[in-house]
Amino acid sequence: MLDSLFKPRAVAVIGASSKELAIGNRVIRNLIDFGYKGGIYPINPKADEIRGIKAYKSILDVPEEVDVVHMVIPAKFVPMAVDDCGKKGVKHIIINSGGFSEIGPEGAAIEADFLERAKKHGIRIFGPNCQGIINTDPEYRAYCNFTFTYPEPGHISIVALSGGVAEVIHQEFSIMGVGTKIYASNGNACDITIPELIEYLGNDDGTRVIVTYVEGLRDPETFKRVATEVAVKKPVLAMKAGRTKEGAKAAASHTGGLAKEDIATDLIFKKAGIVSFNTEAELIQAAVAFATQPIPKGNRVGIITNTGGPAVIATDVLVGRGLTLPPLSANTETYLKEHLYPEASVHNPADVLATGNASHYRACLDAMMDDDNFDSIYISFVTPFFVDNVAIAKEIVAVNQKQIKPMVCNLMTNREQQAETVKILKDGGVPCFSLPGAAASALAGLVEYQQIQSREKGVVKTFTDTDKAGAEAIIGTAKATGRTMLAADEVYGILNAYNIPTADWRMADTAEAAERAAAEIGYPVVVKADAQSVIHKSDMGGVAVNLTDGAAVRAAVGKMEKTLKADDLRFFIQKFEPGGVEVIFGAKAEEGLGHIIMFGLGGIYVEIMKDVVFNLTPVSDAEAVEMISAVKGAALLEGVRGQKGVDRDGLAEIVQRLSQLVSDLPAIQEMDLNPVMASEDGIIAVDARISL
Amino acid sequence: MLDSLFKPRAVAVIGASSKELAIGNRVIRNLIDFGYKGGIYPINPKADEIRGIKAYKSILDVPEEVDVVHMVIPAKFVPMAVDDCGKKGVKHIIINSGGFSEIGPEGAAIEADFLERAKKHGIRIFGPNCQGIINTDPEYRAYCNFTFTYPEPGHISIVALSGGVAEVIHQEFSIMGVGTKIYASNGNACDITIPELIEYLGNDDGTRVIVTYVEGLRDPETFKRVATEVAVKKPVLAMKAGRTKEGAKAAASHTGGLAKEDIATDLIFKKAGIVSFNTEAELIQAAVAFATQPIPKGNRVGIITNTGGPAVIATDVLVGRGLTLPPLSANTETYLKEHLYPEASVHNPADVLATGNASHYRACLDAMMDDDNFDSIYISFVTPFFVDNVAIAKEIVAVNQKQIKPMVCNLMTNREQQAETVKILKDGGVPCFSLPGAAASALAGLVEYQQIQSREKGVVKTFTDTDKAGAEAIIGTAKATGRTMLAADEVYGILNAYNIPTADWRMADTAEAAERAAAEIGYPVVVKADAQSVIHKSDMGGVAVNLTDGAAVRAAVGKMEKTLKADDLRFFIQKFEPGGVEVIFGAKAEEGLGHIIMFGLGGIYVEIMKDVVFNLTPVSDAEAVEMISAVKGAALLEGVRGQKGVDRDGLAEIVQRLSQLVSDLPAIQEMDLNPVMASEDGIIAVDARISL
Repeated sequence: MLDSLFKPRAVAVIGASSKELAIGNRVIRNLIDFGYKGGIYPINPKADEIRGIKAYKSILDVPEEVDVVHMVIPAKFVPMAVDDCGKKGVKHIIINSGGFSEIGPEGAAIEADFLERAKKHGIRIFGPNCQGIINTDPEYRAYCNFTFTYPEPGHISIVALSGGVAEVIHQEFSIMGVGTKIYASNGNACDITIPELIEYLGNDDGTRVIVTYVEGLRDPETFKRVATEVAVKKPVLAMKAGRTKEGAKAAASHTGGLAKEDIATDLIFKKAGIVSFNTEAELIQAAVAFATQPIPKGNRVGIITNTGGPAVIATDVLVGRGLTLPPLSANTETYLKEHLYPEASVHNPADVLATGNASHYRACLDAMMDDDNFDSIYISFVTPFFVDNVAIAKEIVAVNQKQIKPMVCNLMTNREQQAETVKILKDGGVPCFSLPGAAASALAGLVEYQQIQSREKGVVKTFTDTDKAGAEAIIGTAKATGRTMLAADEVYGILNAYNIPTADWRMADTAEAAERAAAEIGYPVVVKADAQSVIHKSDMGGVAVNLTDGAAVRAAVGKMEKTLKADDLRFFIQKFEPGGVEVIFGAKAEEGLGHIIMFGLGGIYVEIMKDVVFNLTPVSDAEAVEMISAVKGAALLEGVRGQKGVDRDGLAEIVQRLSQLVSDLPAIQEMDLNPVMASEDGIIAVDARISL
Repeated sequence: MLDSLFKPRAVAVIGASSKELAIGNRVIRNLIDFGYKGGIYPINPKADEIRGIKAYKSILDVPEEVDVVHMVIPAKFVPMAVDDCGKKGVKHIIINSGGFSEIGPEGAAIEADFLERAKKHGIRIFGPNCQGIINTDPEYRAYCNFTFTYPEPGHISIVALSGGVAEVIHQEFSIMGVGTKIYASNGNACDITIPELIEYLGNDDGTRVIVTYVEGLRDPETFKRVATEVAVKKPVLAMKAGRTKEGAKAAASHTGGLAKEDIATDLIFKKAGIVSFNTEAELIQAAVAFATQPIPKGNRVGIITNTGGPAVIATDVLVGRGLTLPPLSANTETYLKEHLYPEASVHNPADVLATGNASHYRACLDAMMDDDNFDSIYISFVTPFFVDNVAIAKEIVAVNQKQIKPMVCNLMTNREQQAETVKILKDGGVPCFSLPGAAASALAGLVEYQQIQSREKGVVKTFTDTDKAGAEAIIGTAKATGRTMLAADEVYGILNAYNIPTADWRMADTAEAAERAAAEIGYPVVVKADAQSVIHKSDMGGVAVNLTDGAAVRAAVGKMEKTLKADDLRFFIQKFEPGGVEVIFGAKAEEGLGHIIMFGLGGIYVEIMKDVVFNLTPVSDAEAVEMISAVKGAALLEGVRGQKGVDRDGLAEIVQRLSQLVSDLPAIQEMDLNPVMASEDGIIAVDARISL
């Protein structure tokens, strides 16, 4: 339980320092300056007091119970100090010092040592190599942290390993005058993890929205589980950096991780219902709106403005992010024609004109709050000197406080000249942004959360017509012989065990057997050479398509025998299926996370357009359907140029069967079905590959 | 000449008012408060003084020469007042009042009336229905405007019709502490236009960068010409709103224009060398960097940081916007290994660590400025309390003032606690941004300008093997008979007149003539019904492909005669060309701007992927080549799956011939060549359409 970490009754600082520029001094200063409500105990064997507070030689000398200890001492002294804390009955230690796993094996050994001791004592460790925590709750005002942002109390909480980015985000809220609730940056996170912190914040009443930043996930499965649970209760907003190859490399260099292309994190965000952002600006904007606004019921927005251009910019952004601008209802139109200037524009956007006053804004707000056509309201408010802007602000606040539908405000003003207007809106909890694009982006964030949470999650079907044991046996045999690439009959055996439709096939060792097999299958057929040593079958002359009689089959086999000369050469004979749209399916194991499932249009589409979509196992029925319609060329599957569409239900079923297959058979590292021919009448995999 | 508009020796206000909330009062207050250096003359028949300044009953009473008059009087009095100004010898009138063309025909008549009078007097009009101008030049400090942003002097100038957006942008610079030079928002712009203002700013030494916002262009040809000239000298940054259908509608509702899909503006921006932005935030960020930084010589950036995560975010943005992060040169690496902490990361990004001090930053800056691997420097600077941040800021400024390569700084700090650090950087002209994405976006803007200006512009070729007169004759005939859709032989006649390769063709009136024509062309052939009354030839059974002998031709013609029964029915016989990659070309007249030329991949690519690119006539050779390689599926033209590429030079030539064709024949409203079959050996248009 992390409650006493965030609500400590007393905080001690082991390594407290009299030096102004030492972290062991700054932590004490921050606690004092931020108005921490509990006891502060500097621990220093040589000083009598630090910053006017009595210092103690040892943690054991502290006269009251200590919930949180900061350690700001060299790494090598930490294990012993942890033992002291154990004796004292300390609950949490925030280790600000570095010199642990982030510097290499030597530091990692110390980290393992103190962690083992902490576990014995029942102490939870926050960090090491971290900033710490802040809780703005007026009952605690715990600033157990050495950074520089003194936040106002608010409803946004921030968690991240990276102190740099967490602090930048925190500081930006502060610049915008927006309060925060809890801040936690846990550096190496050797014990208390990000998922644990997110779980805690999910249960923290004061936290309305959780903001996180990641460069990769340590324990993706746990993150996914926790985030999914929490995101149902309140919005979790995340940004992932290291999206580009170069960014991933930069991230690896400072985290000591591996630089790798990472699509799994985005898939986890999506699956968990996290609202994901590509820029920290958009993340921050959305958080500001979530901090005070209710969640909209849909994506339909009404715009109120007193100036033209900014509303146009907002419209572009809102529509670009998936919102719609429905017309005013007849009632609203009538009401506004009565209540606005005759020259005002009674549409959506509604333009009250630059001379529009408080009663005009109020009329629009009331009407749109009451109008079932709208789920949210966007306010564009430039403050001309010739109207009573304070009165307008008061009306906006009055309506906002009813919390009927969310609103955001693009407040365009001089903050000194209109200080009262600004203060009224801020104190009234109206999210204000100086740029129209920023306000629109904030509202779009609210809507995205609603859309994500209200989407059909579907159910993960379990197909019972499958032969797991048979498939496992095939893999067992391959493993036993040390092979990592399965042979063609093994691949098709596994596909057939999961009822993934394939073209009829046989294996043959000789030309005669091949001809017999072809006759059984029925012409035309394809013949493919199959041997461990032949990787690029097609380039090596190991594939012959559209063979229409026995002579052609014998000739093809004969030629392959001559060209390829492999000892383990066999022949895979398969019905030739030229018709339909080429699609592809794939699966790839992702460490600690099951598999990534891929679907896309095949042929030149995948090669040139990279038109593929991904999801994580287990893929539900609704998710499978969504994948099929999410490729850019989905229209091709629905039928173009008068052609009939393909069997999309069948495609979605293959996605689900593939998901079950790789979940049942975790030894599969990678597999693909490429191409699969899809037509109106059905779907047939005509080539496939599985590696262990 | 607009010099006396922006550098007025005296300003009079006709309609000066004693009422605090009147524009005629605010303009005078702004002139006074901003410290205007010239004479201020309130004109009011009833007041003796306004804001402590002697008022005059008439402009004719003013004792000195007046360069600029504000008019803040009802529309109907404006024409007479303009005559008074004429008598006085006034040079410019800023009409702040509304009630002119923006309200309809009545207002438009008044606008035409005063404009005619102004022209007679040689007076230039700014507005009407506008905010006015600001010039921060300390010699003038002309605040001829009723808005609320009091800018510091700087190097950014802003022009826009829309006062709302211009003011928002201006205010944002002010919030960021960035100065501006000239501000001009001209509302209805009945006389002085945006291009004229941009031309003036192009010649204004104090203006280093010009920022504009448009919702559409009034006189696109002039805008293009002026912007092209100016953008060579200094960056012109632009944002266009109304990009979405809904945004265009919102724009139309407040400008009184027509809501329409507008791709021409983007093409003009591109052609003119304007740096175009989709968000006002990115526009603002780039302008801040241009205001003080030199233009980079290329896209290679070196990053210096003292914190991990923010540099990762920056890397993603920079790489995403087309910059590269080359490695350090060997010299730089050696130098930094000597000058940084041993634990520092001597790579790109270079991480001096949180404890890195001024000498470390200086070492990195010096080395990267000197390193030919880099064209620009990105600085990530979080201000830990335990280092001397002021000293770091001083080193950054010292290097910046050499103006060797551009730099931007992501300054992550508490602006109160680190006020001195902030001030040093600001006074030293270092563009600082609190978010890493914003700093990266600013630098990306600099690079985009460099890339645009250094791109190969090419030359507009004139093909002399063309028969303009022949083509004009065909169009003349069609026009004479009142037709707007050309017949097939006319279309192919025009294509052939411009040597655009087509499949060999003949026209025929009867089955027998069709058979003879087919024999001349050589089989296989296509037969298409041609008649003004048959629009959807293909749907109506009016197309028969791959006819391999005379019987097939006769049968096809016979069937069409029965089905279509049109009086003007004729038959278009063409060589059937099934091979190659389908591509399409198109041209569309754009009012006041020549034609838009389109190229794309044909067939399902254009239908499903909308894989097309556009340019404006005249298209140069370099632009044509760029168009061919700019389609998303360009790889298909280069050859995939072992196939040879198509004749891309030939495609580029068709783009240029088409450009010449529609430029020679402006009567052509729309034409398309769809499909055109492209292969290694050549290119052949197999269907085409021209409308007048």
